[in-house]
Parts: sequence; structure tokens; C-alpha cells
Amino acid sequence: MSTASNRLTRALSLLDDLEPGAPQRVKANLDTFHADTAELVLGYAFADVVGRDGIDLKTREMMTVAMLAAMGTAQGQLEFHMRAAMNTGVNREEIVEIVLQVSVYAGVPACMNAITAAKKAFEAAEKG
Amino acid sequence: MSTASNRLTRALSLLDDLEPGAPQRVKANLDTFHADTAELVLGYAFADVVGRDGIDLKTREMMTVAMLAAMGTAQGQLEFHMRAAMNTGVNREEIVEIVLQVSVYAGVPACMNAITAAKKAFEAAEKG
Amino acid sequence: MSTASNRLTRALSLLDDLEPGAPQRVKANLDTFHADTAELVLGYAFADVVGRDGIDLKTREMMTVAMLAAMGTAQGQLEFHMRAAMNTGVNREEIVEIVLQVSVYAGVPACMNAITAAKKAFEAAEKG
Amino acid sequence: MSTASNRLTRALSLLDDLEPGAPQRVKANLDTFHADTAELVLGYAFADVVGRDGIDLKTREMMTVAMLAAMGTAQGQLEFHMRAAMNTGVNREEIVEIVLQVSVYAGVPACMNAITAAKKAFEAAEKG
Amino acid sequence: MSTASNRLTRALSLLDDLEPGAPQRVKANLDTFHADTAELVLGYAFADVVGRDGIDLKTREMMTVAMLAAMGTAQGQLEFHMRAAMNTGVNREEIVEIVLQVSVYAGVPACMNAITAAKKAFEAAEKG
Amino acid sequence: MSTASNRLTRALSLLDDLEPGAPQRVKANLDTFHADTAELVLGYAFADVVGRDGIDLKTREMMTVAMLAAMGTAQGQLEFHMRAAMNTGVNREEIVEIVLQVSVYAGVPACMNAITAAKKAFEAAEKG
Repeated sequence: MSTASNRLTRALSLLDDLEPGAPQRVKANLDTFHADTAELVLGYAFADVVGRDGIDLKTREMMTVAMLAAMGTAQGQLEFHMRAAMNTGVNREEIVEIVLQVSVYAGVPACMNAITAAKKAFEAAEKG
Repeated sequence: MSTASNRLTRALSLLDDLEPGAPQRVKANLDTFHADTAELVLGYAFADVVGRDGIDLKTREMMTVAMLAAMGTAQGQLEFHMRAAMNTGVNREEIVEIVLQVSVYAGVPACMNAITAAKKAFEAAEKG
Repeated sequence: MSTASNRLTRALSLLDDLEPGAPQRVKANLDTFHADTAELVLGYAFADVVGRDGIDLKTREMMTVAMLAAMGTAQGQLEFHMRAAMNTGVNREEIVEIVLQVSVYAGVPACMNAITAAKKAFEAAEKG
Repeated sequence: MSTASNRLTRALSLLDDLEPGAPQRVKANLDTFHADTAELVLGYAFADVVGRDGIDLKTREMMTVAMLAAMGTAQGQLEFHMRAAMNTGVNREEIVEIVLQVSVYAGVPACMNAITAAKKAFEAAEKG
Repeated sequence: MSTASNRLTRALSLLDDLEPGAPQRVKANLDTFHADTAELVLGYAFADVVGRDGIDLKTREMMTVAMLAAMGTAQGQLEFHMRAAMNTGVNREEIVEIVLQVSVYAGVPACMNAITAAKKAFEAAEKG
Repeated sequence: MSTASNRLTRALSLLDDLEPGAPQRVKANLDTFHADTAELVLGYAFADVVGRDGIDLKTREMMTVAMLAAMGTAQGQLEFHMRAAMNTGVNREEIVEIVLQVSVYAGVPACMNAITAAKKAFEAAEKG
């Protein structure tokens, strides 16, 4: 197996930890765009960076949720990472605290949009 | 003592945990702007929100650093929170990981600016 | 009545000035997220800050519309504040001028998104 | 014919190069907002600036797509300019390269949103 | 005199209302970049848009200050428009209120950067 | 030679095309931060993405300049890429056109900051 495909395999494995079943959906979406994208972009994001040691995956997802909520430019991915955060062990109380902290650093509208995303993740978690 | 001043007292106490000596400097800066600002803004940020239970201060600072680096609009405060993160127990390896993760969610220029801020915090930590 | 609930009461009262009926809807939305959020976030936004003297509510809403349109990260709240601006006395001509001014400071796409929000507010105002 | 209407005429002509049929739709949308907007905003964007010599229209659209994707605040207009880019001669391979480059300078979420927009433009191009 | 130079003349006249002496400085800066820029960019900003009727210049400057502070990407121009706001009749109390309102919609770091800019404008106003 | 070091070698080679001498300076800066960063971040940016075929380097730099100017969060890197653009064949007239186009999509303040960066690049080019 080539280095490139190992990198993609590791990326998809981490993505499966974030949301079981996501790798197939995300890879299919990227493959219909262009053949190299999954290896390149997911490989960088998840194999090269997020999969590194030094910070546990739960804490990394807390930071990712905080960043996406603060930036306010990727609501769909914020919803995904709200679910992923809960899948990696972030509980409801912690989601609430992240969302409130967003209001301090990025303002109340960013916080309100994060609340909308969080409520969807709570519902998804309840459905199991 | 009034509720308002209690709120400010609690905010300044947390700010002192972030960087010893910061409360005097920050409060003096705000007081020369307007009398209500320290109580209002620091009170909201640190007493109402960041001082809440549910997430420990070290993890909160990791998220704050990530958010400020991702937003890219407050380099001075990013430098402050890099130092504050280290003061609350974030080590150099963790700072490196946060900064690399910023490149995934906010791009390489945001990561590069965060590296500049991190290196200043490393130097400050070495000087003690 | 506690200070906290007074703060929330004042916040909801101002929110009712922005859009009659909004307090119930907004508070219910926040309460299903977490019990403290309405008091904390609305309290800061509307009781602590926007409800202050020094600038009248109409002018404050003009600035809020301009900020949300320029930031471009909260289209739903931009629509709300377009309606709120009109409810506090901003007329159609003034909305047009704000939207054009956004094009200067934040670019034409931000202006175009603000036009979309403004047209919805105009329609809502006509239905009355 | 007045200078003003010449400016609008030139703007609408360029807009027709970006997407045949767009001038009528865009102008009608703006005219229901306010009578001056089309001349003012489209006139500035397309007659005063984008219609200038010095860079060909295809390269200008590549930059516009890159900017809108990097800013992440105008997904609808990003979709329009993805189509416009292809209408001015940008091919699928080039769209892919722009989108990947966005990931470097604005992060992976911005890239993912650009992929969504690009796929819609690819579909539109296939339908002809 | 051509239409174009009339447009620039009107733009520079408004710029002089924002800060006496600014037209010469700003125009010289732009002219060393490229001959068309002053007419094109200042003409659009000040003659085409900000100079329009419908909202008085003082209120327009309040919105400009709010937008620039909320966006957080042009600290130098925020400082200019803080001074311009005061030159068009915005008083210190109003500046304080704008800055606090920024914290609600764009977060505390944006507010803190606006305080820095405001304090420079206060000092400039005291020096006369 | 390992795959990783090949990736870094290719990245530094492209960086040398952007600005002769930059690889040593940039790599030294990153190495004092953390040993993996140059390979990881420069490798992704320049070997994995910007070094790809499909769009020539000159056009890529035009897009990078446009993106950085529009985002407005990395003035130092905007200055670098203004110089890099000129080093890869973008002439002064084209820089002017990019900067004016930024005003349409990101507003006049972003354009003004880009003018400041461009003028520094023009001066550097004159010094040779």
C-alpha cells in the first residue's frame, strides 16, 4: 500500500471516530468532485494534523467547535463537529460552556448560531 | 460591597490567574477610557462566562487561543492568551498542536501569525 | 425579585421594543438549550449594553444592522435586526442608505446579502 | 443617453458575459429594492472596476471565486461566480485547483464549502 | 470640468469634512499608487455613497466606526473614522456606547481594539 | 531521502521561486518553533497544493494576493505575496487591477490596506 493511501486510510479512520459512517459519505462527496481531494484535504486535516499526539481527540474537538463557531463561516461543518465533539466524549454541559465562551470572543450572534447547531447535535444524540 | 463590584472583583481575580499583574494594567487601561467598562466587559467575559464551572481554565484557554488565532483579528490579545494558556498549565507541545490545528480550520496564514505569537509567549516563559 | 431576574426582565422588555412577541420566542429557544443562557446572553446584550443611555435605540439598531451586514456571518439575525430597525423608527430610505454604505466598507457581496434581508423586512412591514 | 445609464449599460453587458440572462434577473431584484442601486452598485463593480483593462475577465473570475471562497460569507454569490468563471473559460481542472488553494489560505472548511458550490456549477455546466 | 473630476471634487470635499487636511494626504498617497485610484475609490466611497442624502454624516460615521470595529481588519482606518466621527459631532459618551455595543455583536477582543482606537481619537481631540 | 524530506525540498524550492532567499529565512523561523512545522505546513501549502499543475504559478499568486487582501487578517503575508506575485511575473498594472477588484468584493478598507502592501512591493522591486 502506498504512503498516500496509508495517509488517507489513517484520515478516514479518525473521521470514523468523529462520526461512525462519515468516512463513506465524505469520501464519496469528495470523489465526485476530484480524485485527489480526499487524500489531499482529509489527509492533511486528519492524518497529518488532528491525528497527531500531544492533545487528545476530545480536547481537539472542543477547540474545533470553538473555532468554527467563532469564525461563523461554516455552519454545516459546525453542526458536524458538534456531533463529533459529543461522539468523542464532550458532554452537554461542556457544549453549553463552549457556546457561552464563544459569545465573549466572537459576539452574541456567533453564540446564537452555535446554539442552533448545538441543539441539533443534542437531538441527534438523543435519537442515538 | 455591591453586586457589581463583586462581579468585577471576581473578574479581576480570574484575570490574575491568567497573568499575574494583568488586572492592574488592564483595569487602568479601561478606566482611562470610561468608568463602567471594566465592570461591564471584564465582568461579562471573566466573571459571568470564563469563570463558570463545567470546563477547567486550562482547557478554556486552549479554546480561546484557538478562536483568536482562527479569527485573526486580535493579534495583541492572541499574544496575551498564549501567555495565559501557559500560565494555566498548557505546555509548549500543546501550544504547537493548537497552532497546527489552526492551519486546518483557518488556513496557513492564520497558523503563521499564531506561530509568531506563540514564539513570543515561549520567550516570555523562559524569562520567567 | 433577584438582581439576575431584573436583568432578564429588562432585557426582554427591550427585546419586545425591537419586535413585539420576540421575547417569548427567543427565551423559549434559549431555555431549551440551557437554563442560564437567556439571563446571561440576553442580559448582557440588551440589559447591560444596548439598553444603556447615551445613544437612542433607533440609532443603535442602525449600527447593529450595519455591523451584522458587514460581518456577513449571521444572516438570520441580520433579518431580525432589519425588522427591529424598522420597528424602532428606521424608515425604508434609511435602510437603503445603510445597505449602500455597507458596500463601501465590506464590499458588494455583503451589500447584496443585506439587500436580501432588507427586502424581507420590507415585506414584513407591509404585512404589518 | 446619460453617463449614468451608459455606466449601467456597460455593467449589465459585462454581467451578461458572466452569465447569459443574469442582467435581467439581477436588475429586477435590485430595482424592487431601490431605483438607484443597480446603477450604483453594479456600475461600480462591473463598469468601473471588473470591466477595466489590464487583467482578462477569465483571470478576474478566478480571483473572484478565490476571494469569495476564502471570505466564506457569500455562498450564493460564490455559486454564481463558479458558474461565471466557467462561462468565461475556466475549466473544471482549474476550478479544482482554485478550491484546493483556498484550503491553504483560508482553511479546510472554506475549501469544503467551495467544493459544494463548485459541484453545483459543474452540474449546471453539464445541463448546458 | 469633467464628470469624473466633479466626482473626485465632491469626494475630497466630504473627506475634508471628516478630517480637515485629509484630502491632500489621502490623495497624495493614492496618486503615488496609481492615477485612477483616488477618483475611482474615493469617488465611489464618498461621492457616490457616503455623500448621499437620507442619513446625516454624523450617523453615517457612527455606523462606519461600528462596522470597522466589528470587522476588525482595518485598525488604521478605524482610528481615522474615530477621529472623523468626533469631527462630525459624535461626542465621547457616544463613542463609548458604540464601542460597548461592538462587544455584543463582535465580541470582547473587537471591543478592546476599538477602545485602543478610541483613546487615540480622544487624545487627538484634546490636542485640537 | 525520505518522502517527507522530498516534500519539504519541493516546498522550499517553490518558495525560492516566490522570493529568492525566503526558504532559509522561513525555515529557520519555523524550526525555532517546532521541528515538524516546516515539513508539515510548508509541505502542505507549497508541495501538496500550490506546486500542483493545472494553474501556472503567476496566476496562483494573483489569487493568493486577492484572497489575503480580501480576508484582511494577514498583512505581513500579504506583503510577502505582493512581492512574490511580482517575482512570478505579475506586473504593476496587474497589481493595481487586483487591488481595485478587492474593493468590490471586500470593501474599500481592504483595498486601502492592499494599496499599502502593494506600494511596499513596488519599492522593493525598484531596489531590486
